Amino acid sequence: MTKPAAQTRKDFPYRMTIPTRWSDNDALGHVNNVIYYRFFEAVVVRFQMQEVGVDWMKDRVSPQAVESLCRFHRPLSFPETVEAGLRVEKIGNSSVTFAIALFSEKDESPAATGHFVHVFVDSKSLKSQPIPADKRAVFEKYR
Amino acid sequence: MTKPAAQTRKDFPYRMTIPTRWSDNDALGHVNNVIYYRFFEAVVVRFQMQEVGVDWMKDRVSPQAVESLCRFHRPLSFPETVEAGLRVEKIGNSSVTFAIALFSEKDESPAATGHFVHVFVDSKSLKSQPIPADKRAVFEKYR
Amino acid sequence: MTKPAAQTRKDFPYRMTIPTRWSDNDALGHVNNVIYYRFFEAVVVRFQMQEVGVDWMKDRVSPQAVESLCRFHRPLSFPETVEAGLRVEKIGNSSVTFAIALFSEKDESPAATGHFVHVFVDSKSLKSQPIPADKRAVFEKYR
Amino acid sequence: MTKPAAQTRKDFPYRMTIPTRWSDNDALGHVNNVIYYRFFEAVVVRFQMQEVGVDWMKDRVSPQAVESLCRFHRPLSFPETVEAGLRVEKIGNSSVTFAIALFSEKDESPAATGHFVHVFVDSKSLKSQPIPADKRAVFEKYR
Repeated sequence: MTKPAAQTRKDFPYRMTIPTRWSDNDALGHVNNVIYYRFFEAVVVRFQMQEVGVDWMKDRVSPQAVESLCRFHRPLSFPETVEAGLRVEKIGNSSVTFAIALFSEKDESPAATGHFVHVFVDSKSLKSQPIPADKRAVFEKYR
Repeated sequence: MTKPAAQTRKDFPYRMTIPTRWSDNDALGHVNNVIYYRFFEAVVVRFQMQEVGVDWMKDRVSPQAVESLCRFHRPLSFPETVEAGLRVEKIGNSSVTFAIALFSEKDESPAATGHFVHVFVDSKSLKSQPIPADKRAVFEKYR
Repeated sequence: MTKPAAQTRKDFPYRMTIPTRWSDNDALGHVNNVIYYRFFEAVVVRFQMQEVGVDWMKDRVSPQAVESLCRFHRPLSFPETVEAGLRVEKIGNSSVTFAIALFSEKDESPAATGHFVHVFVDSKSLKSQPIPADKRAVFEKYR
Repeated sequence: MTKPAAQTRKDFPYRMTIPTRWSDNDALGHVNNVIYYRFFEAVVVRFQMQEVGVDWMKDRVSPQAVESLCRFHRPLSFPETVEAGLRVEKIGNSSVTFAIALFSEKDESPAATGHFVHVFVDSKSLKSQPIPADKRAVFEKYR
């Protein structure tokens, strides 16, 4: 993986803005570390629903989180609006790995970088399943 | 309703302890006001599940929040353990009103007082329904 | 107070949009009741910071929440964008009461209505103080 | 690192119990993935405050999160009480890495495993500093 400092918004083809909330800041006056994962979740869920067409309530085969990681490079703070970026890093038989970055308003290099791994499973048995072909095709586009 | 300052733990027959979490504190260094409602929810949900026997996932008639109110008397702060108290204040045909108080470890008078109103509804149509007789009997005991 | 059902966006001169987050929904598939207070907080904090000029970190006299209330009329759900509206309902010597409403994308009548009371206090002693004149002038404009 | 499946409570000498909250569950009916990091934070913060003696509000050199990771092995669900376990995995010049696991009530193998890295920094300049000797001594004990 390229060094975080070397990545910019252009390296993440899917992006969304996330207005911070007052309570995202913790007692130290910055966005709490756990909230970075809220922002990761926001961009992953939106990508899966709007681009890939996932419907967690109805699909018989749906993606489930198996691993995430975040490296905290610089603080974010309410009331700024954060930009989250995503690209598809790796496509396996049943899993897809997203590279994710969070940008503050004023910086071109990310405040945080990390990844998020989804495995497609049978929604009832939770056993892993091959990625459906139509969904795989979308992942290829954001590689 | 009796004046908040005049109420003590004894006025709330159902009680539970809630360990605060680091992130319950906000940038001002005290438990964020919204989190008080998390604590209200905690004691109401636990009471309804464990004492009254409510199962939100299965029951065809289940309680739904229609109103809540909180008065903030004194700050609470992580890492203290909060005690939440509940009593049944009013029982209507389909609604039940809980009086709720939150206590910090060191004080006998509440840090916050308020209420929470549940209306029993048909879980599908969301139309209000009479409180089931077995549940009403439990509410009477905590009046 | 006018009946909630009779109020529309026009009754709330200060408004902001709030994109919901996946985790705002709870196990029942709708925005959790506690999160409504997050949205109340969002519009109150933004109004106080951007319109009234409050700086909680620096001001020697600053507003502190003493009471809030919410009536839940209809469910809100991720991924919709909520609109929050605020007007000044009452101005006392040291307190200001905001009437607040939350609107879903598709409805003109509010999904929730309520109020939020701030008292201006000395930031150290927490004793109540008269509302500073410049701030009172802003409140008058949003009455 | 040993395989997650092969680890048990005994591999984590520092442990605490965390009662889940209703709202920790998301729309899929299980504890939301982001909340696992809340639980990680809970055990790390408590360990640093109670065992190591960290005071984030006063110390001139204090630990700051630089990386965390979680692998999700099995769902957790409200209303169960989770047990979080921690051990010191690696001690560097200015950084300490904690191995963390979350256990559900009924299983001996962890529902989630991961790590959390703290770097000691000057609280003002945020430049990294050597771990203070008294704190390093505590980390050694939990290795």
